[in-house]
Parts: sequence; C-alpha cells; structure tokens
Amino acid sequence: MNAFSRRRLLGWTGAGAAAVGIGAVAGCAAPAAPAPAELVVPFRGEHQAGIVTPAQDRLHFVALDVLTDDREELRALLQRWTAAAERMTAGAETTPGGATGGNPNSPPDDTGEALGLPAASLTLTFGVGASLFAKVGLDPSLVPPGLAELPRFAGDQLDPALSGGDLCIQACSDDPQVAVHAVRNLVRMGFGTTAVRWSQLGFGRTSSTSTAQQTHRNLFGFKDGTNNLKAEDPDGLRDQVWVSPDRAPAWLAGGSYLVARRIRMHIEIWDRTSLAEQEVIIGRTKDSGAAIGAAGEFDPADFAAVDETGAPRIAVDAHIRLASAESLGGVKILRRGYNFVDGSDGQGHLNAGLFFIAFMNDPQAQFVPMQRALAQSDVLMEYIEHTGSAVFACPAGLGEGAYWGQSLLEA
Amino acid sequence: MNAFSRRRLLGWTGAGAAAVGIGAVAGCAAPAAPAPAELVVPFRGEHQAGIVTPAQDRLHFVALDVLTDDREELRALLQRWTAAAERMTAGAETTPGGATGGNPNSPPDDTGEALGLPAASLTLTFGVGASLFAKVGLDPSLVPPGLAELPRFAGDQLDPALSGGDLCIQACSDDPQVAVHAVRNLVRMGFGTTAVRWSQLGFGRTSSTSTAQQTHRNLFGFKDGTNNLKAEDPDGLRDQVWVSPDRAPAWLAGGSYLVARRIRMHIEIWDRTSLAEQEVIIGRTKDSGAAIGAAGEFDPADFAAVDETGAPRIAVDAHIRLASAESLGGVKILRRGYNFVDGSDGQGHLNAGLFFIAFMNDPQAQFVPMQRALAQSDVLMEYIEHTGSAVFACPAGLGEGAYWGQSLLEA
Repeated sequence: MNAFSRRRLLGWTGAGAAAVGIGAVAGCAAPAAPAPAELVVPFRGEHQAGIVTPAQDRLHFVALDVLTDDREELRALLQRWTAAAERMTAGAETTPGGATGGNPNSPPDDTGEALGLPAASLTLTFGVGASLFAKVGLDPSLVPPGLAELPRFAGDQLDPALSGGDLCIQACSDDPQVAVHAVRNLVRMGFGTTAVRWSQLGFGRTSSTSTAQQTHRNLFGFKDGTNNLKAEDPDGLRDQVWVSPDRAPAWLAGGSYLVARRIRMHIEIWDRTSLAEQEVIIGRTKDSGAAIGAAGEFDPADFAAVDETGAPRIAVDAHIRLASAESLGGVKILRRGYNFVDGSDGQGHLNAGLFFIAFMNDPQAQFVPMQRALAQSDVLMEYIEHTGSAVFACPAGLGEGAYWGQSLLEA
Repeated sequence: MNAFSRRRLLGWTGAGAAAVGIGAVAGCAAPAAPAPAELVVPFRGEHQAGIVTPAQDRLHFVALDVLTDDREELRALLQRWTAAAERMTAGAETTPGGATGGNPNSPPDDTGEALGLPAASLTLTFGVGASLFAKVGLDPSLVPPGLAELPRFAGDQLDPALSGGDLCIQACSDDPQVAVHAVRNLVRMGFGTTAVRWSQLGFGRTSSTSTAQQTHRNLFGFKDGTNNLKAEDPDGLRDQVWVSPDRAPAWLAGGSYLVARRIRMHIEIWDRTSLAEQEVIIGRTKDSGAAIGAAGEFDPADFAAVDETGAPRIAVDAHIRLASAESLGGVKILRRGYNFVDGSDGQGHLNAGLFFIAFMNDPQAQFVPMQRALAQSDVLMEYIEHTGSAVFACPAGLGEGAYWGQSLLEA
C-alpha cells in the first residue's frame, strides 16, 4: 500500500471526518488527509472534472439508455449517482463501509474490487444525449443546439449498437480497475432505471490536455494531439470549449459538448505504408512529431512553405492541415481520446483503433466542418473507419450539494 | 521521460552497443545501461519469463492460427519473432531504428507507438497448441501428453472463436501500450504465415506470483490467488509447474503448460447476493481475504473446523475448499489471470469477467480435477460462464542464440 486507499480513507473518515466531509478530502485541506494531492481530483468546481484535467492514462466510457419515463425516478438516481461519484473520486467506497461494513445479510453497496486501491486521479464526467429529452418529458426548448444530429460523413460505417445514448459517464483514471469499478458501480445503481447501451475501454491517452504532459502516440505510431487545446489556455477554452450563456439554454452554461467517435484503424494496411508516405499523410515527422519542415514538436506548422518545385511542403491533404485552425477559420477542439484494442475481428486482425473524445462548445461549427474536411480529403480515411458516434451535453461543474443534471431537471 | 526508453536505448545502442549486445541490456550488466533493473525482465534464461515473473498489471494475450504447412517458413518466422521479442522486452524497437530510422520509402519495421515508453517489465511468453503438430507435419510422438483435449465441463459455453490456437503469445507489462505494441508487431511480422485467432486484453492482475506482491481483487470484489504458487517456492514450482524430462518429449523439458479460460462473470447477479452469502460461496472474508475462521489473509484455512452445530465453518462447497490442495490430493497450479471488461453484451450489461491463465506441468492431473470439482459443486458456477478455452505447451527458456520453438522444430 503506497498511496491513499479506500481502506485508509475509511479508517480516517471513521476517526472523525464527519465534520470535515469528503470535499476537504478532495482538496486535501484536512491535515490528516493521507493522500498525495495529485491522486485526488476535486469532484466539484466551476467545470466538471475530466475535461481539462490532465488526461489520465486509462478510460472506461459508458453510454446508457434510460428505461423510465418518470423524471422523479431519474432524479433520484442522479442524486444517488452524484453522492457515489463524489466518494469514489475521493478514493472511497460508494457509501461509507459499502463494500464490507454493512449488513452482512444484504448485498454490499459497493462491489469491492477497488478496496485498497488509491483514488488514482479518477474523474467522472456526466453528459446527456438528445434522446433523453422526449423520453422523460423535458421541454423541447431545453434541447441545446449542439445536440443536433451529426450529418452522415463520407465513409461512416456507424453501428447503432456503438452509437448514441441517453446519458454518458466518462471515467478516467491512472488505474483501469478504478475506472472500471466506478462505471460498474454506477451502472449497478442504475439497474431498472438505466441500462448499458455501449461501453468502451481505452488506454494510452492520445491527447495531452496540459502543457505539463508529454504527447503520447496513437496506434499509427504518431504523436497525437500536439496542437491540442490545453488547460493552460484560458482564452482558447472560453472561446472553443465552454458553452457561454448566450449560446444555449441556461442549464448548459459553463458546460461543454462531448463528441465521441469510435475509430477503427486498419493497422495492418497502415503498417504496409512507407514511412515517407505515412509522414506525408499526417504532415508530421514520425520521430519527433514536428510538422514537416519544422524543427521541434511544438514549433508551428508553416502551411505556406513550398519546396523547390513550388509544391506545398505540407501536403494540401495532410491530416494536420485539414484539421488545423488555419484551414477551419480558427476552429479548435479539446481532444481527449484513447487507444483501444477490442480483441480480434474474426478475420485474422486485431480490432484496434482510437476512441476519439473531444470537448467543444459548438459541434456544428467545430466538429462538423473538421470531420467533413477530413472525411472528404484526408488520405488517412483510407486507413480508418468510424464505427460509433455520439454527442452529449455535459453541464457545468457542480456547486456544493448539487447533483448531476440538476440544472436540467430543475430548469 | 523518466525511465529507460526506446529512444534512449537507440542512442545508447548507437554509441557502441554492438559489442555489448542486447543480452547485456536485459541483464543490466553494461555500466552504461540507463534502465532501472526492475523495468527490464531478462528475456533468456532457464525458464521463459512471464511465468514466475512477478505478475505485471496489464495483459495482451493472442492466440494465432498458422496458415502454412511449410515448417521452414514457420521456423523463419519464429527466428524473426525471437529477435524482435528480445529487443522489445529490453525496451527497444523490433529492429535497430525500426520505427523511424530505416529507408523512408519502405514501411517501417516497427509500428512506433511505443517510442519513448519504457520497457515497462514487458515479458513475452510463447506456447504451441495441439493443432500445430499435424499442420506443419511434426511427428505425432512429439505431441506432449498435457496437450490432450480438455473434457467438457458442466456449464461450459465455449465459443470456438475464443478457443484454441496453434500458437500463443502472452504479453504482460506494466503499460498496456507496451504490451499491445509487442503483440501487434509480432502479429504483423507473421502476416501471411500466421493470423490472429483471438486476442484478449486484461488489467488488474488477479493473482500474485511473488510473496513480494499484494493480492489484488477480481471483479467479484474478493482477493484472488492468496494461496497461489509463488516464485519463492522452488519445490512447489518443481513439483507442479515445470515439466520434468521424464513426463514429456524432450523438447518440453523445463517448460510448462498454459491453460487459458475466458470466464464471463455475471456481475449483475453476483451484485444482488448478500455479503454473507458471497463469503460463504468463496470461503473467505471479503474485507481481509482471510479464510473464514482465520485471522489474516495468509493464515491457513482450517477445513476441519466446525461451528457449534457441528457444521463445517468453511462450507463443503466453498470455492477455496473445492480448489484447495487438501481437496485435490496436493494439486496446486500457478495462476496468472487478469480482469477484463470487453464493452457491453448488448443486453444492458457489461461484458466483464476474469481471463484465467494458469501454468502447471500436468493439466490432466491438475486443472482437470480442479475444474471438474468446481464445475460440479462450486456455487460460484451460478455466477460465471466459461466462454473460451485453450491449452498451450510453453517450452523452457532460451539459451543464447536459441529461438522460440527451436527445441520442437529441431527435435
């Protein structure tokens, strides 16, 4: 045991934390709190955690169908979810003593597989899909514009079983068992009210969300997300990520939209492509990640540069050009994707790819033109296939006592 | 960059490693080797790494079909695999400069997604299945007795697409991207000669293989593998794990058999069971992991103890009793399993469970009676379902210059 653990929190909580509360644990304000600060991400705040939080290494994402049309039943679940989520992100069980300390003749409140594990930077990020509103009788005027259906993009091979959902929960952690435990326990609490629609595990975060993080590589072997929006760019976040009150129903102000795309990579085909061609397709050198013609990974790409024949040094259809703010009228997004391998495809290949997650404040003006440009012109499209798609509206962070979705349900 | 990395190895190798060789890197004998010793597990030795090696946290397991009947083609692949595997376990690319240093007009030798990542305790463990022998015309006398087909056990729901295989490679690492990179590159090298039959990712190792490791929990929330065979028990390993020369064809002496079972857990049903019943079913307390009636996790279970009514304190059908050496005439196995979540099952549940891996020297005398007892009497069977099964023979470790499978192909 080398870190803040559920057992130790339980002991410490039992020793007199009633007056201190989990909030203090999350902020590590209590002198007795045994946690290294970096392992506990505060659950409450201006924005939801898990968006600009430095991207953790592991993901468990779940999209849920709501089975009830009873808004009060949903509200009660959201309240219970919130209490459990706050405790789990602090490294605790879903309820005090929930795994082993309750009535032995009842099923435990907590399933127990995270006992003894640290908080591991767990964040839980909550969102609602367009299909939720009619299902529980919410006023159509509350549907924010960013939840409008995405157009079909060239090459889309979307599987309905891997798309959509009334609700989503994104669990990110440095320990997959902690992320899985959180999703599993929330799913369990929802039994009868919600059901798993689809779920995706990921590893090896492919986008940094902080300048303090190194850029990781996707399964094409390239550094991914070098030019991502980052936590240290408050103007960029304000302009591109956080929903301003004038652009959506009030319940979503300060929130963001989450666009998820399951991107199957045909890695076997990519692997037969030459290094030179790979670099032309991406527009970066594979080794350093620098844009072609630039020296370092973070040096700006010179899209105007031409070679001795007058041809653009970064190809006109290079991935980084098509996806660049320069090509898209200044549009950027905050990417937060993960690599995945989901077994084999039954045809002798690994079922592998990138689970793309991005946050933005206007999917129609940001993701749609970017993806349209990529789907139409990006040579990379020969090597990938979008097999799942979903958009969720993620409300702002919670103040003390507030619960997930409260701003919407009480709008 | 805080550890031994592929880039740094490349630099160091370039600086004059030709005379030192990768073998020295693996053993960290060279004074210039920059790796903390615990991050690099030696590839060669008396036994294959990845069996008694302290269980790493992440798994990528792949079973492969051999597509050729040409033994020389297979041999050539095994030689190339061995060279690449040795390099990758040392934290290097599959070939020197393989990801970005080769001819830019050729596909890179290495797919690159592990550039910059440490060796992360990667082990690669190789095995052959019973179906290989006839396929490449090996003498039937070379088929070792432990590769005899397993009987069908009560409750088996085996999916042929998740079972069997001519070859297997078990990749374990502390970093899933390192394990995935290794499997992906070996699969790629095999293109045309081998194809992926099935593949499984796992996390949260559920069995310690060293007394220096803490016991982790499975997705039923219980500590798993407390009573496992461990590296510090050479007599137990000799008697139960390593194949002695008198019990198999010579090519397998010093090796072991790997039994893999994909065990789907019906976690939703388990989660509706009371704590008391869960503990009766397992035979351990959930909190500490101690056997019922014992004080500490590692205190021996007293299977003879009775309560005031004369009933056994550990139920006659408790999991730990049925699986115990006491019940099985002294039989033990070395377990090395992992938890998994493979998305959703399409019916509102997570597709989760335990990917059981165990090593032993006589599956028919060890795994078969154990699994028969469990399948017939274990109440746990109500909550689980075996959906995949395979047995592989893993030869002994490699001496200098030897390649995977050499003892078999040159037998």
